[in-house]
Amino acid sequence: MTTPVDFYFDFSSPYGYFAASQLDELCARYGRSTIWRPILLGAVFKITRQQALTTIPLKSSYAAHDLKRSARWFKLPFQIPSPFPISTTAACRTYYWLYDRDAVAAKALAMTFYQEYFVNNQDISSPEVCASIAATLGHDYAAVTAAFADPQVKMRLQLEVDAAIERGVFGSPYIVVDGEPFWGADRLPQLERWLAQGPW
Amino acid sequence: MTTPVDFYFDFSSPYGYFAASQLDELCARYGRSTIWRPILLGAVFKITRQQALTTIPLKSSYAAHDLKRSARWFKLPFQIPSPFPISTTAACRTYYWLYDRDAVAAKALAMTFYQEYFVNNQDISSPEVCASIAATLGHDYAAVTAAFADPQVKMRLQLEVDAAIERGVFGSPYIVVDGEPFWGADRLPQLERWLAQGPW
Repeated sequence: MTTPVDFYFDFSSPYGYFAASQLDELCARYGRSTIWRPILLGAVFKITRQQALTTIPLKSSYAAHDLKRSARWFKLPFQIPSPFPISTTAACRTYYWLYDRDAVAAKALAMTFYQEYFVNNQDISSPEVCASIAATLGHDYAAVTAAFADPQVKMRLQLEVDAAIERGVFGSPYIVVDGEPFWGADRLPQLERWLAQGPW
Repeated sequence: MTTPVDFYFDFSSPYGYFAASQLDELCARYGRSTIWRPILLGAVFKITRQQALTTIPLKSSYAAHDLKRSARWFKLPFQIPSPFPISTTAACRTYYWLYDRDAVAAKALAMTFYQEYFVNNQDISSPEVCASIAATLGHDYAAVTAAFADPQVKMRLQLEVDAAIERGVFGSPYIVVDGEPFWGADRLPQLERWLAQGPW
């Protein structure tokens, strides 16, 4: 038995979206399952004193270019949404609420959130938008809306974020295979070799 | 006729060392030459308000791990030197002084600086260490030492750094092919495709 691969990401992270589109198929080729763990990069950045890419002189304009080029590299539809970046608290709460009821459905919802944000420019910082997206996948709109304000759901997300920081997660995507961390969509080749052969 | 590929890097940047070890052979496969342009990342970071990897909570310990794993990925000898990072003004001045006299010898010197720092733990922040390394490659110790204080050499480096910032260089390695920028040793696969086929 192998342990699942842990996939930490923020719903507002384009490189997280790129990794999300590749990871499960990549892991499945090596007989590995994944657990998707959305986090709040804003909370992490308070610890690391980092800031969103879009606010960094010089780096921000490179990033805008690199994102579009990397999307084509991965053959993914993509546009830089507006607003960007956004708070992803609502999306995360929806995800964990659903995850605890149906983990498979939660993963499909997560991928749909990414596509709605990075392809269809839907503002998933809005609880109503998140609930509407969930509803299109067959989930109950009223139940999702109730979940946003549920103290248990809030706590569930908080604990996930705290555990991620405790584990050293400082960015998105951040993927852990048997304790070995890989940060960034550009580490997928190293991740694949690790899955294939272990340490080198 | 193709224009040379511009390679910006800091002598204190391990990912710059990794790229330096790959770039010329990679470019030569596509009939391209390179110009190596060492810069001072400290000056760049003043513009971008960034800080050395080693000072960032969580990210610094990941980086120490990733550097060693990536060195093995590239099959390169490597250790994290002490002190790290360092000022690379002396190394840069030595490089440009020599470059204006013998560009081929300057590239060999640059690679030797990298190896002395990241393999043999020599502190290349020291002008005397830089001059000694240059001397082992057949260059005149006294002439190199004189170059450190030469206002023309100082200005030469300053202009290179200013031009790099003007061009948008914000990190190391930063590689420009026909105006297309690639940041990071992990962009070498995209760089290679660009060299092979141009835009995708």
